Amino acid sequence: MSEVRVHNFSISLDGFATGEGLSLDAPFGHAGERLHEWYIGTRFFHAQDGLPGGTVGVDNAFAEQHEQNFGVEIMGAGKFGPPNWQDDPDWKGWWGPNPPFHSPVFVLTHRPRPSIEMEGGTTYHFVDATPHEVLEQARAAANGADVRLGGGPTVVRDFLAAGLVDYLHVAQVPIVLGRGVRLWDGLEALEQTYAIETIASPSGVTHLTFAKKS
Amino acid sequence: MSEVRVHNFSISLDGFATGEGLSLDAPFGHAGERLHEWYIGTRFFHAQDGLPGGTVGVDNAFAEQHEQNFGVEIMGAGKFGPPNWQDDPDWKGWWGPNPPFHSPVFVLTHRPRPSIEMEGGTTYHFVDATPHEVLEQARAAANGADVRLGGGPTVVRDFLAAGLVDYLHVAQVPIVLGRGVRLWDGLEALEQTYAIETIASPSGVTHLTFAKKS
Repeated sequence: MSEVRVHNFSISLDGFATGEGLSLDAPFGHAGERLHEWYIGTRFFHAQDGLPGGTVGVDNAFAEQHEQNFGVEIMGAGKFGPPNWQDDPDWKGWWGPNPPFHSPVFVLTHRPRPSIEMEGGTTYHFVDATPHEVLEQARAAANGADVRLGGGPTVVRDFLAAGLVDYLHVAQVPIVLGRGVRLWDGLEALEQTYAIETIASPSGVTHLTFAKKS
Repeated sequence: MSEVRVHNFSISLDGFATGEGLSLDAPFGHAGERLHEWYIGTRFFHAQDGLPGGTVGVDNAFAEQHEQNFGVEIMGAGKFGPPNWQDDPDWKGWWGPNPPFHSPVFVLTHRPRPSIEMEGGTTYHFVDATPHEVLEQARAAANGADVRLGGGPTVVRDFLAAGLVDYLHVAQVPIVLGRGVRLWDGLEALEQTYAIETIASPSGVTHLTFAKKS
């Protein structure tokens, strides 16, 4: 069976995956891009923008897994747009006409709208569903490939709590955000169902991988 | 000037340094000893009990710093005893007649009592004071050596918030405790005043060091 995987999910030392005060001008609120600098700095990310250079060490090795063997992405409403994007009938996500997904994307929202076909193979589907329900739809659309769970933190937490995540890669950035949305809340004893590895990158980021025990 | 240092301060992935339900039988509540297994496993800890063996890698290297150049310890009421130890006039700490401090120890409590002289050079002093005030007293007692800030999390947090900690070593254990007392609350932007290094131990623990920028 295809796996449900989370990659390059960045959190602060105090466990926040996004800041406070999210808006059109500040997609991550007061966190800015500080949780993602390590990712933006990689060769993988540079190449997506057609740019040369970038880091080629352990950060890049993890970053590159973003694209490996995925047939679909599931994301939460909080990732797709700023608060209340549902009020804007023309909102089509943060990522422009040719989004970096190149696959079906299932957006969880309590206010679904018709699907939107974008350039480059991305189609947004909007569904009001439980984690189990949307996963069933996503798997059907993935043609046997894996399902990327793209965030944000609330969705990742909900899927973890439901036991639906096979692999989780967390990048812990050495900053204390103080406020925002936490990843770990409500996940007591998560370590009992996952084999966990940790590696510190020279960039200062700590990569943690959680592989579900069979 | 002597430094204020925190060593071997263990937290969970979600930032808890102690669990919920602290009692005489459960000094760390539902956390048990899970936050300290890496420390208990070291050669340094074994030797303190006169036992052979123990790990000799990076965990042990950090553990050994527990004793280097300290002239005094400051600890919070929550470390000295179970909840309401102040009601027991005979309570003399968790550590028996010959405690592992071998120095003056200043215990912060809103209900001070007379000092207690123990075996092996440890004397407990009980003070109702601000971080700045108790630090002044502790420094005077340290004879030029450093001041160990021994915990628990509330005291470490208060001293960090007051800008009084020169060096902090945190050992992050890959478990999700879910509840207890957090270290990082109220410390937004701590990284701006510290140089931070991270190293992952093969034991699964991540060691983070915070050295105050001058």
